[in-house]
Amino acid sequence: MTTDITHLDAARVAAVLARVAAQRPRVQCLTNTVAQNITANMLLAFGAIPSMAIHVDEVAAMADGAGAILINIGTINAESELAIPKLLEVARDQAKPLVFDPVFVELSPLRQHVAREVLRLRNIVVRGNATEMAALEDTLQAARGHDLTLVTTGKIDRIEGPRGAFSVAHGHPLMTKVTGVGCAAGALIAAACAVESNPALAAAAALTAYGIAGEIAAERSNGPGSFAVALIDALAGIDEATLRARMSA
Amino acid sequence: MTTDITHLDAARVAAVLARVAAQRPRVQCLTNTVAQNITANMLLAFGAIPSMAIHVDEVAAMADGAGAILINIGTINAESELAIPKLLEVARDQAKPLVFDPVFVELSPLRQHVAREVLRLRNIVVRGNATEMAALEDTLQAARGHDLTLVTTGKIDRIEGPRGAFSVAHGHPLMTKVTGVGCAAGALIAAACAVESNPALAAAAALTAYGIAGEIAAERSNGPGSFAVALIDALAGIDEATLRARMSA
Amino acid sequence: MTTDITHLDAARVAAVLARVAAQRPRVQCLTNTVAQNITANMLLAFGAIPSMAIHVDEVAAMADGAGAILINIGTINAESELAIPKLLEVARDQAKPLVFDPVFVELSPLRQHVAREVLRLRNIVVRGNATEMAALEDTLQAARGHDLTLVTTGKIDRIEGPRGAFSVAHGHPLMTKVTGVGCAAGALIAAACAVESNPALAAAAALTAYGIAGEIAAERSNGPGSFAVALIDALAGIDEATLRARMSA
Repeated sequence: MTTDITHLDAARVAAVLARVAAQRPRVQCLTNTVAQNITANMLLAFGAIPSMAIHVDEVAAMADGAGAILINIGTINAESELAIPKLLEVARDQAKPLVFDPVFVELSPLRQHVAREVLRLRNIVVRGNATEMAALEDTLQAARGHDLTLVTTGKIDRIEGPRGAFSVAHGHPLMTKVTGVGCAAGALIAAACAVESNPALAAAAALTAYGIAGEIAAERSNGPGSFAVALIDALAGIDEATLRARMSA
Repeated sequence: MTTDITHLDAARVAAVLARVAAQRPRVQCLTNTVAQNITANMLLAFGAIPSMAIHVDEVAAMADGAGAILINIGTINAESELAIPKLLEVARDQAKPLVFDPVFVELSPLRQHVAREVLRLRNIVVRGNATEMAALEDTLQAARGHDLTLVTTGKIDRIEGPRGAFSVAHGHPLMTKVTGVGCAAGALIAAACAVESNPALAAAAALTAYGIAGEIAAERSNGPGSFAVALIDALAGIDEATLRARMSA
Repeated sequence: MTTDITHLDAARVAAVLARVAAQRPRVQCLTNTVAQNITANMLLAFGAIPSMAIHVDEVAAMADGAGAILINIGTINAESELAIPKLLEVARDQAKPLVFDPVFVELSPLRQHVAREVLRLRNIVVRGNATEMAALEDTLQAARGHDLTLVTTGKIDRIEGPRGAFSVAHGHPLMTKVTGVGCAAGALIAAACAVESNPALAAAAALTAYGIAGEIAAERSNGPGSFAVALIDALAGIDEATLRARMSA
């Protein structure tokens, strides 16, 4: 993996966002029930379409025409555990972008096990915070050569993939005070991957837009409740002029 | 089915809303986990009471004293699939109003199958968008004579039932940018059906109030996040004077 | 049980809140899918950390390092029913605080059964509204001597435990118009129990802060939608000066 950080400018981010808006990719989300609502609303604000099947007998059909797949194990249950292999199969057979979010993997042997299964796939994106990524270190080592794109979100988001590395220094601490904001980031990355073939660039574009929306929302809110509302508004309102103004600041 | 469009005036809508407020019907919702929260909050804003059981061993008991039942298959899983027949049985045996929302039925053979099972019932209300209703066309044809009330929501809502047809031209495009707004419409229709024996009139009253709340909310919001919040506020604040002013506009 | 009502002053409440903020206890919530999002956001606003596992094979691991456990049966399903005994075992073996919320127990024999199982445990907190607590009367009688702390929330919250009784007269009627506000109260009590060994005092402190946040939010909102948002903001902003001003009013 390269560690040269590619410079990201507003025009490249705007180009990815414009393709999401034009193509309106559907993202099939197998995600946790806590974050489903904010995830769906962020996808809509981003110009994408959410679908959230879980039934083992339909997840493959639902993923079939989707532009990308998200797997988030925040509230994994017996049924979603069985649905995951079906989604992995669609992702592999159709070379469909897949983002994996290993929520709280550091707390549960079951989640470690599921992560190992998911990471047998090639070309996927893994998004987690520093604690989750550290807890996955051995699994990620074992998957070296799988062309993974690793996205570690935090005060500065670090993105490393086979076709480039990016660093995103946007966002606001309130983003950690609202449940599901991190989980929704994974869905936005998936939406961007549906329209941009370089997953690292897709992730960087999505996280830049999201981080800037967070900065704008923080200026307009009085606490985590109003921040969550303003974040959806701000993401829906992001345009190239805003990106340009904020990215050069 | 008649295609004469009955004129709806503010007094008729207000009369249905007043009965909801007075009787506070409980709506037993088997609905998708994405939309549960906004559905419950919209029911409360409408003056009704939400309950959201899913367990096969209790859905019948929970539906027993409810004023109406909602079945929404947006995140159908193995357990809710088994719970659906129990709810159908209560609806049939107690002649209790039932609203069916065939979310994304166009994407999944499983959902088509479930829809066929549900549509064996008589006298139910089916609410979907144009895509969903089109995907159900064969099933709806096969259920001709079942006294269904069909509610196709969109820019203009079309309502056709055995006892009348209505057209509702209220609402705002932001209603399609917030997840669960359509699903919550089904719950409001169910609440109205609990107090009004003509399902078409009940649906028209609920959708008129909801659409007008959407118009008011759009004037008070800066994007889909603040719109969702304002929509709940506006629905809670609807009164006959507001209906009168907006319906004659 | 004593019926002497202990006086609660702002300093005692603030001391509990300061310990939550300093220790940031994680609360393992097995809670209903309607209330998960607002519960997680209220815990974050309170300074605690939510985790929401449900899988039978991991709930014990997830509860292991948590400061407290919440069991809320609002959308109990076949899987969470099996997960409950695992959580009860962790609570018992590790003497970990546990709050039980018997949502709609009056409507379902299944919920009565589950409540009886949970109430075999000693030293737990039961939080319900007056209807739920009345429906549990026999079960609570049978559990006399189990050192339960009973929290009946309403216009005035009544708290009775082996080490004291409190009465909390804060809050606002809008708190009953937003789904999950009551359920989130149970989570806040659990967070307080993680840092305060007297469950009655913990519950009283949490409900005082929450009720005052409700009073502040009501002054800043236009209906139940904006109230829910303002409630999160207000809870995140509670400090000793605010408590002092509101508690003496």
